Amino acid sequence: MNSFGRLFRISIFGESHGKSVGIVIDGCPAGIPLKTEDFEADFSRRRSGGIGTTPRREPDIPRIMSGLFDGYTTGAPITIVFENTSARPGDYSRLVDFPRPGHADFTASRKFGGYQDYRGGGHFSGRLTLGLVAAGVIARKIILPAEVTAFLTEAGGSSDIEGAVNRAVEEQDSIGGIVECRISGVPVGLGEPFFDSVESVMSHLVFSIPAIKGIEFGSGFRAAKMKGSEHNDNIVGKDGTTETNHAGGINGGITNGNEILFRVAVKPTSSTHQPQQTMNFRTGKVETLKIEGRHDTCIALRVPVVLEAAAAVVMADLMLQSQAVARVNKPKFV
Amino acid sequence: MNSFGRLFRISIFGESHGKSVGIVIDGCPAGIPLKTEDFEADFSRRRSGGIGTTPRREPDIPRIMSGLFDGYTTGAPITIVFENTSARPGDYSRLVDFPRPGHADFTASRKFGGYQDYRGGGHFSGRLTLGLVAAGVIARKIILPAEVTAFLTEAGGSSDIEGAVNRAVEEQDSIGGIVECRISGVPVGLGEPFFDSVESVMSHLVFSIPAIKGIEFGSGFRAAKMKGSEHNDNIVGKDGTTETNHAGGINGGITNGNEILFRVAVKPTSSTHQPQQTMNFRTGKVETLKIEGRHDTCIALRVPVVLEAAAAVVMADLMLQSQAVARVNKPKFV
Amino acid sequence: MNSFGRLFRISIFGESHGKSVGIVIDGCPAGIPLKTEDFEADFSRRRSGGIGTTPRREPDIPRIMSGLFDGYTTGAPITIVFENTSARPGDYSRLVDFPRPGHADFTASRKFGGYQDYRGGGHFSGRLTLGLVAAGVIARKIILPAEVTAFLTEAGGSSDIEGAVNRAVEEQDSIGGIVECRISGVPVGLGEPFFDSVESVMSHLVFSIPAIKGIEFGSGFRAAKMKGSEHNDNIVGKDGTTETNHAGGINGGITNGNEILFRVAVKPTSSTHQPQQTMNFRTGKVETLKIEGRHDTCIALRVPVVLEAAAAVVMADLMLQSQAVARVNKPKFV
Amino acid sequence: MNSFGRLFRISIFGESHGKSVGIVIDGCPAGIPLKTEDFEADFSRRRSGGIGTTPRREPDIPRIMSGLFDGYTTGAPITIVFENTSARPGDYSRLVDFPRPGHADFTASRKFGGYQDYRGGGHFSGRLTLGLVAAGVIARKIILPAEVTAFLTEAGGSSDIEGAVNRAVEEQDSIGGIVECRISGVPVGLGEPFFDSVESVMSHLVFSIPAIKGIEFGSGFRAAKMKGSEHNDNIVGKDGTTETNHAGGINGGITNGNEILFRVAVKPTSSTHQPQQTMNFRTGKVETLKIEGRHDTCIALRVPVVLEAAAAVVMADLMLQSQAVARVNKPKFV
Repeated sequence: MNSFGRLFRISIFGESHGKSVGIVIDGCPAGIPLKTEDFEADFSRRRSGGIGTTPRREPDIPRIMSGLFDGYTTGAPITIVFENTSARPGDYSRLVDFPRPGHADFTASRKFGGYQDYRGGGHFSGRLTLGLVAAGVIARKIILPAEVTAFLTEAGGSSDIEGAVNRAVEEQDSIGGIVECRISGVPVGLGEPFFDSVESVMSHLVFSIPAIKGIEFGSGFRAAKMKGSEHNDNIVGKDGTTETNHAGGINGGITNGNEILFRVAVKPTSSTHQPQQTMNFRTGKVETLKIEGRHDTCIALRVPVVLEAAAAVVMADLMLQSQAVARVNKPKFV
Repeated sequence: MNSFGRLFRISIFGESHGKSVGIVIDGCPAGIPLKTEDFEADFSRRRSGGIGTTPRREPDIPRIMSGLFDGYTTGAPITIVFENTSARPGDYSRLVDFPRPGHADFTASRKFGGYQDYRGGGHFSGRLTLGLVAAGVIARKIILPAEVTAFLTEAGGSSDIEGAVNRAVEEQDSIGGIVECRISGVPVGLGEPFFDSVESVMSHLVFSIPAIKGIEFGSGFRAAKMKGSEHNDNIVGKDGTTETNHAGGINGGITNGNEILFRVAVKPTSSTHQPQQTMNFRTGKVETLKIEGRHDTCIALRVPVVLEAAAAVVMADLMLQSQAVARVNKPKFV
Repeated sequence: MNSFGRLFRISIFGESHGKSVGIVIDGCPAGIPLKTEDFEADFSRRRSGGIGTTPRREPDIPRIMSGLFDGYTTGAPITIVFENTSARPGDYSRLVDFPRPGHADFTASRKFGGYQDYRGGGHFSGRLTLGLVAAGVIARKIILPAEVTAFLTEAGGSSDIEGAVNRAVEEQDSIGGIVECRISGVPVGLGEPFFDSVESVMSHLVFSIPAIKGIEFGSGFRAAKMKGSEHNDNIVGKDGTTETNHAGGINGGITNGNEILFRVAVKPTSSTHQPQQTMNFRTGKVETLKIEGRHDTCIALRVPVVLEAAAAVVMADLMLQSQAVARVNKPKFV
Repeated sequence: MNSFGRLFRISIFGESHGKSVGIVIDGCPAGIPLKTEDFEADFSRRRSGGIGTTPRREPDIPRIMSGLFDGYTTGAPITIVFENTSARPGDYSRLVDFPRPGHADFTASRKFGGYQDYRGGGHFSGRLTLGLVAAGVIARKIILPAEVTAFLTEAGGSSDIEGAVNRAVEEQDSIGGIVECRISGVPVGLGEPFFDSVESVMSHLVFSIPAIKGIEFGSGFRAAKMKGSEHNDNIVGKDGTTETNHAGGINGGITNGNEILFRVAVKPTSSTHQPQQTMNFRTGKVETLKIEGRHDTCIALRVPVVLEAAAAVVMADLMLQSQAVARVNKPKFV
């Protein structure tokens, strides 16, 4: 389903080359100041530009269709629509029968019996993340003073990211990358033991971002090579501060008050200019496909702001859930 | 919350040293043959034994309290209770004030205001996975002919797993490991684009398993270092068979008919016999904690069967969801 | 929350005098033919006109922003937006401090801390039902050959409905009414024992329609005065056909294959031209309020098409859920 | 599905003549004092006894299997199991082929393909309400100082309830009744505009109680015969107190601070000693069925405590949801 969240709930819609993409945000508390300009900084980061990103240029103008009144959220659902203007539907029709490796062309076709909007990935396109970034802008306001920051730590296996991207452009190929996300100022006690651990809920939303193929919290895969005496974080503060942060700020699925830390693996953009082999369902034979046009060389460059949005949305939902029981609970000790 | 799934829905309950642990399975189709003995093989794998696993011995007798009649599931909720018999509550009382590093002692105490059952991790204990394994036994029957297999590929960073565990026992420390899971016989088209991609739903449930700190699908983190031309899987069969399986059987969040493949990182058991530093909330000072008693040296040894169960539960839920639209959809092409 | 449904899931948004109202329909199967004109008949019934209905005239043009391609649903969320054109925001500002009896002015103000869009009821307005009617148009296609029909059986306590409305217009007051809904062609076995009985799910959605204050299935409140021997419906057909239909087509919360039958009570329109007493929060005194402008004299006149839509949405969701287990279940006997 | 609630979430299980019935309560805040004896008063009311109720005698001993520690709720799921002791499975086997009118025998058989536990109604039995009453005992503690009271206002169409029941016993028939429920001390602002109005959520749970066929809030069906000037409740207090309470304490789906008031129609017990006609699926002919044994003459006698429980559960869930946004909302004005 295209919805996520228990109390702060987002529903995404749209297609890459259809009429629009957008989002409905339900459960946003009333009284949060919001204006159209609030979105621009994050939208701009998402659009980026520069080497390695697609030249498609959409103005990304958020039309707030509901839920906002006199400059504040009203408590009713906030619907934001982005009309597509620069779409070129004609480019993609042959992909129905000749699916691109790495894309959802084949799986979508089977899942939806051939009725899917196949243009530019349709509903599976990375363009859908625009709505998620918009939700993130609002979620950030809810979780204050907690703050989310993500950045690309390597591309194509190298920490010289600009060099790696340039090389890939020259080679007419695409590359992946690693993005790290940190959340500071997190209260202790967010998350649920089974089945809504912070890792569970965070990974659920994060894997909705196209091209993400792995996630690890704290030491993550390195933890598998560590000893318990190395990996455990000594608790050194009465507020739960730990000496190290191998746990990534989460114990037993619950935030421990330290920085939440996780990393994601972004696969190389599926659209590469290198020739590939794939089934032509019209001829019934495997044939060579060469993808034309310009695409992101390294989609990972655009992931940080989307990842921040996803993290903020998850935090907002967990925080609201945590507050739900706050007044009923009368702490006994600690 | 302690429930998971949309149509095949599990709800877990219990505490390590309380009266019981158990599970309610709602949405299980009627007419599936089930008897108590069906659980034994997987329970036995979970209990394991051998070097590196805890000497606590529970008989793990499943009491099926509802949902079974004349040897078949009835369509009503299946409740399975495991009464705890070997629990020794006296061992754990001091952990309330003197939280063990790596465990949920501190976070649970804060989240639940000190009212949590702190004995042996309480509701956060790995013992809760017994219910999950039971649900997996039933889910496996639903997803046939699809099959799930998981195995430990390395422990403490070594593929000589037995050696690594023996060494850790000698060193009185604990180690982590990597577990790989494969699902064969998967139909094309399971999963939803946003936000219930196969990766999203699978990781959500998998991170409920204690000690999991990372998950990757297909090439996972290695994908971040690959080029698009390497990573993309050429489609070579009309059924969607691909030459390689870097995608782990999933494109755009939807199964592509190839084997689903993912790996998880298991952290070293938090209980290590090495001395550790932690806050004593009674004295307000950081003091040395030495954990006595016997625990799993390498909890990763017991993860495979739990991971299989989680994967089967996810598959069952996705399969039922997929069938929901099956008769309405009249395929157009492909 | 503003969403409803498990598999066929609707999310409503908008405000009476804001930019728009609309709906997102998630989980709609792919391959259903749909065009803008399909909505007109039901929209026209909802707008109605004639004596007793508001003179506000909106063109009700559905802008389908996503989920439709080449004349068919795609399986992705369908978003339909209706831009408000005839709204007159200026009319309503004083209602913030001087809440209208019977309306949500006071409750919304308290719930949302004064940030709600108070114009014309804002998010609480009956105008929101336009999206529901749109969802109903699609749901009707899914549930075929089942069909839903609703009609007004009495207004102001009289079966001479036109007369009753005329009288109320003369008296400058408003009246309520009773609407009956019938669903024919329903398969046996829809609904869930606890807690998603057909009555549960149907009443849940039906009470979302503004002004509904009661619902009864089959004999309903009259059943409370009947004897078991009178009320029970003798089963006379192998397909479950019953001689009478006191149960309204539902036993144990599950459809029995007979017509589903229920009735709802619609309260008189809250806006009446008669003077009323209410608290003026600015003066802190109870004062006389006289509502100007034109409103529906008998909102019940417009309920039938909305009730049909709600019923169709519920049926679509239950039908998809029922199909989910269809292939796993191998019937033993009936 | 057999679960209900967003934050305070109940899952019911069990069969009338199976091993047990019970409930899992998830999302209950930690720190609520609870002991086994707390349940007895409400269980006793539900068992009742006296003329018109079944002579089946179950001890109704609640076995709290999880979620309770040192006399307080822990924040983890509370599982309560009631083992069936007085069940007589032999009584019911022929009902599979010869379904009782008014019962779920036929519908369950079709829904679950004949695999359902048919003994005494199985999962559809009124015995399942025992778990709901248990949840109600806990919910009442959460919603304090709000209080719920329900009482039978008429049976068999008469306010001389004892007389009506005696007459029905003599006539060897069964009768229905009307139960009224009032909730006092309710805060303003509970409920959600679409689709979780108080009426929506309340009716959803209430229709899970077997034999309920109608519900009305405030004036309910009488409202349909009233004029707006009669029905609207004048607001006369700054806290929202109204002069009358035709709205039943709810405007726009949101509590207005006055008493919540609703009534339900309970159909006559389906088991009557009068001979009935029904299909014998073995012979393929309509034959006469005579139900032996003792059953409730007037099941409505036992509904009040169950209705109170349902109402308390709904209030608890709405109250927790309301608190979730409480600290984020900074009221602007009221």
